[in-house]
Amino acid sequence: MGVQKLNEEERNTLLSPLLSDSWEMVQDRDAIKKNFTFKDFNEAFGFMTRIALRADKVDHHPEWFNVYNRVEITLATHECKGLSQRDVNLAKFIDNVYATFTN
Amino acid sequence: MGVQKLNEEERNTLLSPLLSDSWEMVQDRDAIKKNFTFKDFNEAFGFMTRIALRADKVDHHPEWFNVYNRVEITLATHECKGLSQRDVNLAKFIDNVYATFTN
Repeated sequence: MGVQKLNEEERNTLLSPLLSDSWEMVQDRDAIKKNFTFKDFNEAFGFMTRIALRADKVDHHPEWFNVYNRVEITLATHECKGLSQRDVNLAKFIDNVYATFTN
Repeated sequence: MGVQKLNEEERNTLLSPLLSDSWEMVQDRDAIKKNFTFKDFNEAFGFMTRIALRADKVDHHPEWFNVYNRVEITLATHECKGLSQRDVNLAKFIDNVYATFTN
């Protein structure tokens, strides 16, 4: 059994809290995105590195853009062409890591 | 004295070799971009990490997008709103690092 897209109930219980915490739906895609800002590039890339280590461990990777102190992250699951539990898990991890940075 | 945009002669001597090596001008911007592909995310982020260390050391940072094994890099100099010697230097460094990855 492969990865399943989130169903209606899961979207209400799992996705809604993220959408109330600065994550937003990507236009025309079943994906979520969020922008993060840091003091400088060093902080931004340190943040990215912690996420990269986790992403590779759980084999679920972000789509992300960085310029200097800004990081834009989009999450979706390739295998099910939409949002799955994996994206919820990674989003929570990302938010937890971001919380460790004091801006 | 701040960072200067590349002049005509410098574009011929310094930029042309890059444009012959898969770098291309960004539309409507005095900037260059190039796409890099790797075996997997681990390789792609290893590549990014080597560039990040250099970028922070020389205080000249890329604009970049990554998803899984792909990295898209755009270079321009914020200070002069266009291409400078710093972008040429970083592009060469990036190409040298990329050459160490066997695809």
